[in-house]
Amino acid sequence: MQFQFTLDEVRALLEGSEASGDYTGNITGIASLEEAVPGDLSFLSNPKYRSQVGKSQASVLLVPRDFDEEPASGKIYFKVDNPNLELARVCSLVESRLWTQPEPGIHPSSVIDPTAEVDPSATVGPLCYIGPGARVGKASYLVSHVSLGKDASIGEACWIAPHVLVGDYCTVGDRCRLHGGVVLGSDGFGYEPSGNQLEKLPQIGVVVIEDDVEIGANASIDRARFAETRIGAGTKIDNLVQIGHNCKIGNSSALAAQVGLSGSTELGNGVLMLGQSGAGGHLKIGDGAFIAGQTGVSKSVPPGSKIMGTPHMELNAFHRMMVVQRKLPEFAKRIENLREVVESLKPSSS
Amino acid sequence: MQFQFTLDEVRALLEGSEASGDYTGNITGIASLEEAVPGDLSFLSNPKYRSQVGKSQASVLLVPRDFDEEPASGKIYFKVDNPNLELARVCSLVESRLWTQPEPGIHPSSVIDPTAEVDPSATVGPLCYIGPGARVGKASYLVSHVSLGKDASIGEACWIAPHVLVGDYCTVGDRCRLHGGVVLGSDGFGYEPSGNQLEKLPQIGVVVIEDDVEIGANASIDRARFAETRIGAGTKIDNLVQIGHNCKIGNSSALAAQVGLSGSTELGNGVLMLGQSGAGGHLKIGDGAFIAGQTGVSKSVPPGSKIMGTPHMELNAFHRMMVVQRKLPEFAKRIENLREVVESLKPSSS
Amino acid sequence: MQFQFTLDEVRALLEGSEASGDYTGNITGIASLEEAVPGDLSFLSNPKYRSQVGKSQASVLLVPRDFDEEPASGKIYFKVDNPNLELARVCSLVESRLWTQPEPGIHPSSVIDPTAEVDPSATVGPLCYIGPGARVGKASYLVSHVSLGKDASIGEACWIAPHVLVGDYCTVGDRCRLHGGVVLGSDGFGYEPSGNQLEKLPQIGVVVIEDDVEIGANASIDRARFAETRIGAGTKIDNLVQIGHNCKIGNSSALAAQVGLSGSTELGNGVLMLGQSGAGGHLKIGDGAFIAGQTGVSKSVPPGSKIMGTPHMELNAFHRMMVVQRKLPEFAKRIENLREVVESLKPSSS
Repeated sequence: MQFQFTLDEVRALLEGSEASGDYTGNITGIASLEEAVPGDLSFLSNPKYRSQVGKSQASVLLVPRDFDEEPASGKIYFKVDNPNLELARVCSLVESRLWTQPEPGIHPSSVIDPTAEVDPSATVGPLCYIGPGARVGKASYLVSHVSLGKDASIGEACWIAPHVLVGDYCTVGDRCRLHGGVVLGSDGFGYEPSGNQLEKLPQIGVVVIEDDVEIGANASIDRARFAETRIGAGTKIDNLVQIGHNCKIGNSSALAAQVGLSGSTELGNGVLMLGQSGAGGHLKIGDGAFIAGQTGVSKSVPPGSKIMGTPHMELNAFHRMMVVQRKLPEFAKRIENLREVVESLKPSSS
Repeated sequence: MQFQFTLDEVRALLEGSEASGDYTGNITGIASLEEAVPGDLSFLSNPKYRSQVGKSQASVLLVPRDFDEEPASGKIYFKVDNPNLELARVCSLVESRLWTQPEPGIHPSSVIDPTAEVDPSATVGPLCYIGPGARVGKASYLVSHVSLGKDASIGEACWIAPHVLVGDYCTVGDRCRLHGGVVLGSDGFGYEPSGNQLEKLPQIGVVVIEDDVEIGANASIDRARFAETRIGAGTKIDNLVQIGHNCKIGNSSALAAQVGLSGSTELGNGVLMLGQSGAGGHLKIGDGAFIAGQTGVSKSVPPGSKIMGTPHMELNAFHRMMVVQRKLPEFAKRIENLREVVESLKPSSS
Repeated sequence: MQFQFTLDEVRALLEGSEASGDYTGNITGIASLEEAVPGDLSFLSNPKYRSQVGKSQASVLLVPRDFDEEPASGKIYFKVDNPNLELARVCSLVESRLWTQPEPGIHPSSVIDPTAEVDPSATVGPLCYIGPGARVGKASYLVSHVSLGKDASIGEACWIAPHVLVGDYCTVGDRCRLHGGVVLGSDGFGYEPSGNQLEKLPQIGVVVIEDDVEIGANASIDRARFAETRIGAGTKIDNLVQIGHNCKIGNSSALAAQVGLSGSTELGNGVLMLGQSGAGGHLKIGDGAFIAGQTGVSKSVPPGSKIMGTPHMELNAFHRMMVVQRKLPEFAKRIENLREVVESLKPSSS
């Protein structure tokens, strides 16, 4: 993957930045401070890497306003308010070059049911299947091998990666990104014991994905038993996440990789669940809650909570407990010592 | 997704039910007590929601026999033995309307090896590949993008979702449901260290799925190193589950989402493993065992065990331990207090 | 799946072996000691199964040099240095029979961009899509439904299973095996809070897979935010593993099923992470480290470490802690007893 842009192109993006240094060449890569080579652009976001700026081979550096070192010869520093966000602007420039929007139209290898509706401004890549009554909105792009079930619907300006399945009757809002292998609308895991067997409870609900949602590779979201499983606007879901039937997630929440939600659990807005954490069924996790990695949420959690552990406890309490827990073998000794001392203090009655 | 059925259609399903109330309209949705709107059918299964029945907007309610409130005007209550199961019957009715069985036949976009055998009553949807010697049984339905390897076999009346892979020589029984992205027959994870490298051990066994098994989205079941990995009849496997090579699972067990089994582990019948739990290799988990969420099974487990924790312990012992563990910081203080008191009790010898 | 080979074919593979016994028939299966039937080949690798050798129905057995029992009539024992590795040789023989390399060429149902390059010795099976500028090297085999993005590249002698996605600009080295549903090059999970919303940080880097890497079913590896996510030569990754953006993994490491790495974490060479373990972001895990199952790695880990727990601790310390932890309820009692004794020893001052 190769790209190149001029210093002036970058300068134009960095409104209000302050430049110092004499580098005038092109930019041919983006890299971390440590790995950058001449020609690269790099950035200082985390203050703990401050001492690496001077040693970096990068030719162009985005640094915070209060960074007071001067660049060596052949380098240029741009002082900006938030180097992390300004880097995102530069990356967007690269993105617009390397990921060009394809021509609208339907690849002849794709199979489109005659009752489906694909907007003329949308692109359907090779080897897709669009089922009866399904809809693809304006300017959306199905890359390849996408399968849309009966009456499934994709909104406007969506990007749908290869091997995505949007099951029958499930709907996706506008400006969503679904990564490779995402499954929307698999059956919920619902059975009723009947003698020694498990009788399947039909799962006739749907999945509703609101606007501006991103869903990571191979994530799986079950359709509701009835009614709907719903992912709120602006929520971001990482790879390999499991969402059970009838879950409801609010707006702008973030679920990191391999998180799992059992059925009928509800998350508020702005919830953050870190990797490999999970929640039991029929729980409510309040707005702004923070769930540490690998946490097992076992009861409903009030808004703003910070929790960790399996079963979960309050984050500070967990950390205090861990400190003591690591001293357990020492405790055992101390108790034994005490017992001996106490024993020796007893009046010798035998 | 819209549907509508008459009160008489529902009444006909609810054999032996007792009705009271005056609602006579159609049913246009199914919802929980809290979310129902007029025209919806709802149900009371969990007694803790009893007080919500009277407030529910639902027009039609399935309630248990011992529910003694009378419906308000414009509503109807059906008293039944098990509202959860009766709801399943109503959902089945909806299902039969919304998910119609497709016409038999092979979509012309699919690629069928000339040595494969597809029963004339089966349906092969668009863009599937059926390899040499593979077989598809009576009335089975491959939705789209399914790949069957060499000599792979699907039984009768199966439903195989898009992007499923049944690898070479692997077999699936009758009435199985495989959800989107399921992989059967990936290689087991077997290597032998050889100097600084890992030498691959060939994986030449197969996967055998018995009858009436359901497998969730993106679940992955490895072929055996030799012989077979086997999933017993009536077992239900949820999304994103990992089954290692040479595992054997008995009948009517249930593995919730993101469960993982290492190689050669065996489960009995009626085992229940909750979400994100895992088991090490070469273990035996007995009939009817219950494994709590996120448990790490580290040794074989006798039939009927209930376990939790990593490494696992007996469930009651785990709960007792957790109660005490949360008091650890307090313990630390108590020990220190005791030490001080004991110190003060010592004869002042110095 | 059926196969058959002669005793002489096996004997030829087992160079330097010592045979005793009178079995002369063919070999028609491979099975464990316990499950073998007459005609099967079996092996003794784990000494704890030593007593099963005599009882096994297997006709042909691979045993270690120091195994001193004599075979019963109708059986043959081959004494070898490492029965596990010798079995692998036999399995390779079976593999070469059952998994024949397909004819080179491109299936007519596949869609190949005119600017892509497929080596004439490669095989592209049915229903694949190979994007603009993508390359497939010598003797590589894409089974079916594979999607290669823009400028994506597959090296020589690779085996790429159905439903694999190699995203735009991502590269795969020589002799790699990618199992069903693998996603390379999904976007990293990077957002910057902006008011109540999450603003997406563009992810413009790539994934680089070096030579001799194997990746399990439905594993997902994110592209870098910039620069690259890299998997070192000879590393083996199991099913459903998550690798975040900008991770770097060294050579010959092994990540078991459902392992998860957050962004920018680096693993050295020869690291072993067992199932369902995970690591936070921006950590360094040194060469040869061992991470037990379900461990949550919360800080960087020096080379050669053995760790367990969430948050992780040294393995021996963890085990010591667990021993004491299980005695916690007893401790509580002992402290209470001590308190009572101490109380009784106090001078009665009130």
